[in-house]
Amino acid sequence: MTEASPNQLSEMWPGLLAEIQAANHILLASHVNPDGDALGSALAFSFVLDQLGKSHEVLFHHPAPKYLNFLPGIERITNQPSGRPADLAIVVDLEAIGRIGETIYPAIAAAKKLVIIDHHQPNERPGDIRIVSTKSPATAAILADLWLPNNIEISPEIATLLLVGILTDTGNFRYPNTTPHSMHVAADLLEAGAKLTAINEAIYLTKPLPAVKLFGKALSNLRLAADNQVAYTTLRQSDFTNSGAIEEDTEGFVNELLAIDTVRMAAILRESASGRIKISIRSQGPIDTTQVAKQFGGGGHINASGAHSDDTIEVAAEKLVEAMVQCLASS
Amino acid sequence: MTEASPNQLSEMWPGLLAEIQAANHILLASHVNPDGDALGSALAFSFVLDQLGKSHEVLFHHPAPKYLNFLPGIERITNQPSGRPADLAIVVDLEAIGRIGETIYPAIAAAKKLVIIDHHQPNERPGDIRIVSTKSPATAAILADLWLPNNIEISPEIATLLLVGILTDTGNFRYPNTTPHSMHVAADLLEAGAKLTAINEAIYLTKPLPAVKLFGKALSNLRLAADNQVAYTTLRQSDFTNSGAIEEDTEGFVNELLAIDTVRMAAILRESASGRIKISIRSQGPIDTTQVAKQFGGGGHINASGAHSDDTIEVAAEKLVEAMVQCLASS
Repeated sequence: MTEASPNQLSEMWPGLLAEIQAANHILLASHVNPDGDALGSALAFSFVLDQLGKSHEVLFHHPAPKYLNFLPGIERITNQPSGRPADLAIVVDLEAIGRIGETIYPAIAAAKKLVIIDHHQPNERPGDIRIVSTKSPATAAILADLWLPNNIEISPEIATLLLVGILTDTGNFRYPNTTPHSMHVAADLLEAGAKLTAINEAIYLTKPLPAVKLFGKALSNLRLAADNQVAYTTLRQSDFTNSGAIEEDTEGFVNELLAIDTVRMAAILRESASGRIKISIRSQGPIDTTQVAKQFGGGGHINASGAHSDDTIEVAAEKLVEAMVQCLASS
Repeated sequence: MTEASPNQLSEMWPGLLAEIQAANHILLASHVNPDGDALGSALAFSFVLDQLGKSHEVLFHHPAPKYLNFLPGIERITNQPSGRPADLAIVVDLEAIGRIGETIYPAIAAAKKLVIIDHHQPNERPGDIRIVSTKSPATAAILADLWLPNNIEISPEIATLLLVGILTDTGNFRYPNTTPHSMHVAADLLEAGAKLTAINEAIYLTKPLPAVKLFGKALSNLRLAADNQVAYTTLRQSDFTNSGAIEEDTEGFVNELLAIDTVRMAAILRESASGRIKISIRSQGPIDTTQVAKQFGGGGHINASGAHSDDTIEVAAEKLVEAMVQCLASS
């Protein structure tokens, strides 16, 4: 079922609850490079399993990113399965089995039964029991639909964890996946004691110093073309070294360029340690970035694509802006 | 009444409706330098008066800021009263009569009756009829409480205008004034057809090119002190000229510095056209910025204050960082 309504989701809880109650030991897990929804959903489920008195482990291939270290229960996650046999593996926010990650996959695969709870467009359809709703903006929103109407006590910890999942996957209610229902659910979680201020401070109001320094460098290298409709910038290895920033710190930079009122297409060129140039391209509306990415052997979606170049960063930037200006002219 | 509950607010509508129905001509107004809540609330009320078939004018002393020009009905606002006698003036989002603005004040003062609808802490208590709730995060949230339960048809335009008021006054649900009830109301407005994507694009996802260029300059001038706990930057007149930015474009810059993970106190020094230096200081938690501002003859609140200096920007910056480091050490 891919289009379960909130009511249909709530009706799926008793079946899952029966499986949980029948199990002696349960594994909770999610995808590699965990985000707010993966960690929030898995940890919320861990607190619910506590309530139900169920022995369990919370397994993640990768550690949490720093900005999510404030999550209640974050110390529960590990990539070292105990080896204790599990009756049930509940994997949240996962649409393809390969994204579980190799350090924890064998433990999950060895569990007697696999439950998948997810909001992504199903791909491989893994799992013996699948609770999937592509209408939900976050897996955390699905869990709220399972639990809120079904007498699971939503503690402030659980409320905070689920709200983190909803806020991070809806971009704080800014993405088009935001539904009135998901906002009502968020309001219910606030009412249940979710710590909104703590979430905002940790996730939105805190930026690593090296990332801010690197963004300053990116802005000072800002170049415009096509009557300010094209914006691009370059970051060299020395910029990373001087600021102390890592590649992860550049996330969102290209979107900041695209947010400039005159800009319809934006790109960033980053020099990797090997000297290879990584290119990210974004656009608004019908402007197809893949037309540009393809010229560099890359690809992606209409409004977001990527490519690599083995030229120097200056030459790559020159070729890129030419391709972007052409693309814009033909759009 | 300063602590009206949503239910109490909804019960105040019939009385106000009777006044509206008895009136031949109505003036709507709000405060100078209108923000999203002032414009959203006044324009939403204008659409409701259309529904009720009431002749009215929407008066503002100042024009709307550019980023709010997308608001439905924005062309209705004017600072030129028609002079037609009004039975009723409904002034939203206003706690002190002086903030109406001189170009429209005489028309408002000449109206037979003054209604104030507001969420600020009452100060002067103007108005013959006062609908005030300091628990509401926005005047728009009060209007939603008046209208949603009272059979006023919330068109997509009205929903969009009220949602703008709630989102801008709660910082997109990031400020502590966010209540579960206001989030439920926002969800209801979404359901009524509020254009969330348009709001986000206009208000949050669009930055003027000169402002982005100037922010790049501010970041390239970023200086740190006290083990990266103090951050400050300078902007000269030439920076404004080179980027084409105006003072309004620096709004939020100092908060961006305060958002750096290591920073507990931040400041920005701006050179005005006259050469005078404007200083803005921000802090986190118990660090009292007024201790610093006072040394420059300024003042403000614990976490936000301002001052001026007649020194050169370099000398002012030097004195400022010394005062900030001392203040931090004594906190």
